[in-house]
Amino acid sequence: MHDYVRIPLTEDEMPREWYNIAADFSKPLPPPLGRDGSPLRPENLAAVFPMNLIEQEVSTQRWIPIPEEIRRILFRWRPTPLRRAGALEKALKTPARIFFKDESVSPAGSHKLNTAVPQAYYNKAFGTKRLTTETGAGQWGSALALGCNWMGLALRVYMVRCSFNQKPMRQTLMRVWGAECLSSPTDRTQAGRAVLARWPNTPGSLGIAISEAIEDAVSSPDAKYSLGSVLNHVLLHQTIIGLEAKKQFAKIGLYPDVIIGCAGGGSNFAGCAFPFLADKIAGTHNPLVLAAEPTACPKMSRGVYTYDSGDVAMMTPLLPMYTIGHEYQPPAIHAGGLRYHGMAPLVSHAKHEGLMDSVALPQTECFRAGMLFAATEGIIPAPESSHAIALAIREAHRSREEGKTRTILFNLSGHGLLELSSYQSFLDGKIEDYEFTPEDLRKSLAVLNGLPSLS
Amino acid sequence: MHDYVRIPLTEDEMPREWYNIAADFSKPLPPPLGRDGSPLRPENLAAVFPMNLIEQEVSTQRWIPIPEEIRRILFRWRPTPLRRAGALEKALKTPARIFFKDESVSPAGSHKLNTAVPQAYYNKAFGTKRLTTETGAGQWGSALALGCNWMGLALRVYMVRCSFNQKPMRQTLMRVWGAECLSSPTDRTQAGRAVLARWPNTPGSLGIAISEAIEDAVSSPDAKYSLGSVLNHVLLHQTIIGLEAKKQFAKIGLYPDVIIGCAGGGSNFAGCAFPFLADKIAGTHNPLVLAAEPTACPKMSRGVYTYDSGDVAMMTPLLPMYTIGHEYQPPAIHAGGLRYHGMAPLVSHAKHEGLMDSVALPQTECFRAGMLFAATEGIIPAPESSHAIALAIREAHRSREEGKTRTILFNLSGHGLLELSSYQSFLDGKIEDYEFTPEDLRKSLAVLNGLPSLS
Repeated sequence: MHDYVRIPLTEDEMPREWYNIAADFSKPLPPPLGRDGSPLRPENLAAVFPMNLIEQEVSTQRWIPIPEEIRRILFRWRPTPLRRAGALEKALKTPARIFFKDESVSPAGSHKLNTAVPQAYYNKAFGTKRLTTETGAGQWGSALALGCNWMGLALRVYMVRCSFNQKPMRQTLMRVWGAECLSSPTDRTQAGRAVLARWPNTPGSLGIAISEAIEDAVSSPDAKYSLGSVLNHVLLHQTIIGLEAKKQFAKIGLYPDVIIGCAGGGSNFAGCAFPFLADKIAGTHNPLVLAAEPTACPKMSRGVYTYDSGDVAMMTPLLPMYTIGHEYQPPAIHAGGLRYHGMAPLVSHAKHEGLMDSVALPQTECFRAGMLFAATEGIIPAPESSHAIALAIREAHRSREEGKTRTILFNLSGHGLLELSSYQSFLDGKIEDYEFTPEDLRKSLAVLNGLPSLS
Repeated sequence: MHDYVRIPLTEDEMPREWYNIAADFSKPLPPPLGRDGSPLRPENLAAVFPMNLIEQEVSTQRWIPIPEEIRRILFRWRPTPLRRAGALEKALKTPARIFFKDESVSPAGSHKLNTAVPQAYYNKAFGTKRLTTETGAGQWGSALALGCNWMGLALRVYMVRCSFNQKPMRQTLMRVWGAECLSSPTDRTQAGRAVLARWPNTPGSLGIAISEAIEDAVSSPDAKYSLGSVLNHVLLHQTIIGLEAKKQFAKIGLYPDVIIGCAGGGSNFAGCAFPFLADKIAGTHNPLVLAAEPTACPKMSRGVYTYDSGDVAMMTPLLPMYTIGHEYQPPAIHAGGLRYHGMAPLVSHAKHEGLMDSVALPQTECFRAGMLFAATEGIIPAPESSHAIALAIREAHRSREEGKTRTILFNLSGHGLLELSSYQSFLDGKIEDYEFTPEDLRKSLAVLNGLPSLS
């Protein structure tokens, strides 16, 4: 049992339904609110999203079938392997068994394709001709570019300025897959122009890019907007990760004691963890479930649980979430996918209900962890994923200190082959840590004045 | 049967032996010669290679067992999937079934890791402390960096200058995996200094980098040299590709009518094709077997079959091969791995015996093919691999013209995620073709004067 290198699943074993955790919470998820403070109705979202995805967004049905056409595309890279990080264990001299779910094998290089394909599919079915979206590090933008390319939809991507400048190859990738990619803030939207007027040298943020992408979509008749994380339907599509992992663990007669994912908007974390949280809610298992976030943007570890906007220009509904304020612009850390001010409502609710916790980690620790993982397991992790690795290593050390054999699962959300320039900066000693301070929090929460709170 | 997306193999089905085609040729492979023109004895290679690999190099045993320790490492990414390129078929409106063996899933991103691991293993077993090697595009250098890292060996890589300048991320990758990477020609070796004196602005070549790496190895007591292609033992290690593919085709009751690989030194081509050539030699099947090479460096399609040196400084033995002369420095085309002047003796012999043929393709056609493949199948192919794709597309068109359903197999030797700058150049219209001319041939073959010929 201890010698597995990777635990595969056959195509037949790939899940046929997504898991919706909203069906299982003991207290229901608080609803999103309109600007007037009243609960949002599905039709209020219709300018932004197609109705078939809105139905998923508000659904409380536990199992939602995966259409066969989507499954056929997912087969191109799924089921993904569950791998044992045996060489990493050896290097750490830990009694812990470390497993990781390898989402880096997707053709777009990350878990993001798991939702890009269904979102493109449902938009296509609805009649959408063009999608708009934001991207941080570029994982989401390139995944949606591929999804749209496969479904014959056009795509415009607003890429956060600091990532746009750091990662020209991500732009090429989107271009190869037929998408248009702009550096956000742009001067093409009111939201972008407003930001440029206030903060001309901004590194950009996901909150700004979201504002621009939504404005673009709602001002065009046949365009819709697509979000790569945060929303319920996005997390839903990602649950295929954890559903597969559970089957894989069952094959080798194990169940993870610790489950870890990095969390930017929350989708890869939720995708891996929620199917296990179902067992925790049901009382059949009691895993420790931890989200890894950067010390530069620690919304769950240092933020507050309240209603906040999902974007800078307040174009989204008010969402119930852990937040450090929708105007917070994190420093240009290399894990661009983790530079979001808020956390998915479903993940925020799970934390508030005590089902899970979060840990903030400095990026140099994460790069050291990523380097060790690359040397031992041979896979270059995305800087985002290296946060999960760093936390898994902390837990492995704890196992050693306590002399306990524990089974640790983390989600390797993506590879870092297009982020090698970040590794070069680390090797050159040019990477610094940033610790979000109480003063940062006080300042950044000022934008919440006058918004409703979660009582 | 026609609906397969990918045909997996279990770990148990991974081959336990490599296939040695030298056992099956009707005429034996001509031996390598020393500088005096007499056949080389194994001990003549002992300064450069460890004896356990030399034994493989000269072996005529048909099946050579794969040590269990190597198999355990190969399991990390092998067996690799055989995939059906259904979306590409649809785009081409071809009746042909197109399959590809996906070697891009290795952690180093290409087939090169298949031999990097055994070479590092056998060197470790022999007592080697440090390896030296050359690399073109960087696929081999990074694969050997990972192999050496896993086995605890030091590595110095001489990277062809034009690729070194085009691909800084390849250098970072080697650095992450603990290797040292130098731009060749360097001023650290006699061979490098001699080249710099004659051609100060040379883009470099594999022939030059090999000279430097060998000189480095033979002048250091505990170092050996490692080659990423060309030699018999390297091709042997790659046969796991074709052996797996045969099992995968057997599972779906098909046998390929056409088998295609790109050919630089010949190792990925041979790895995929040789196990099928065994059936052709045995007379049980008669597939068309084609090597794709660039018009800028078409050794098999435009060169001569004779004895030539494997490197510029003539440090290697004289090898029986198709060559366009060991001093030929091809233009800096983007498929850096195909810029080698000669072809592996085993492949050259197979062509000379009429078992296979070669086709030269211009690089713009290959980039167009690579773009179409990326759009349809979602995988960015290495510029080298796109030569195989372009030839598979020509064969698919031929199927359509002839109205014949044929089964085409090509080897996707690696992904192009670290070569996206080449795709950007293509998208920007900056890529030009070069056609090797009879005048080029006349000039470049002058270096063969006085060398023995194959009678």
